[in-house]
Amino acid sequence: MTIETAVQRRMPIALDQAFASFDEHWSPRVVTHVNDYDVRVTKVEGEHVWHVHDDTDEFFLVLDGELEIGLREPSGERTVTLPKGSVFTVPRGTEHKPTARPGTRILLFEPTGTLTVGDRHDEVPDHVDVTTGHALKA
Amino acid sequence: MTIETAVQRRMPIALDQAFASFDEHWSPRVVTHVNDYDVRVTKVEGEHVWHVHDDTDEFFLVLDGELEIGLREPSGERTVTLPKGSVFTVPRGTEHKPTARPGTRILLFEPTGTLTVGDRHDEVPDHVDVTTGHALKA
Repeated sequence: MTIETAVQRRMPIALDQAFASFDEHWSPRVVTHVNDYDVRVTKVEGEHVWHVHDDTDEFFLVLDGELEIGLREPSGERTVTLPKGSVFTVPRGTEHKPTARPGTRILLFEPTGTLTVGDRHDEVPDHVDVTTGHALKA
Repeated sequence: MTIETAVQRRMPIALDQAFASFDEHWSPRVVTHVNDYDVRVTKVEGEHVWHVHDDTDEFFLVLDGELEIGLREPSGERTVTLPKGSVFTVPRGTEHKPTARPGTRILLFEPTGTLTVGDRHDEVPDHVDVTTGHALKA
């Protein structure tokens, strides 16, 4: 069954199939909705950009590979490391910058409409997609 | 690092370590919060109970094993199968009943305070924990 058929028939989505449907890094696909939230999956590699979501937390689950997230907190800057199979929530208002090993795949949970680069951000490099997430395609 | 230390220091949580901290089935642990939502993980095996959440969708990700979800929809009853690595959202207002193979582990997103047996349900068997989720303990 194609991804589009699964979506149309409201069938479960196999994440491997979702990941096979695109190549871009830092360019999330919305795999399903939960109330007014998106569940998004993204291939990530190299550096994202320092940014902050003023009004929402952002949830990360590492499905493959390894993700680091730099955090600028009131107490100073630190970096947390998320190996495969770990989860972390960046609190709203906390400036953060994800960096990933090649081959890393993550799942995100955040309100529909949340921009990949937040409400404030450093200059966005070409390899970072400024988006609220893309629909899955076959 | 223990789970409690990771929580206290706001460090990433390894899901394997979270699962190692409890044995019960159908008894979710809250691994992190996202705004007013919980991310919960649960060991599941055998049958849950027909129930419905009137006011919220419910998201399922199968981390290990296989989950079936019976759905009573306006068009009739159907069952969806979620192998490892697949996702599905049960829409609000849809009566549903999960059933799992031994060794199945799932991750759920739902609003904080959501009861495991919903707003309306069949008689709850002893092996199903009626809860809004438990905190992680070391």
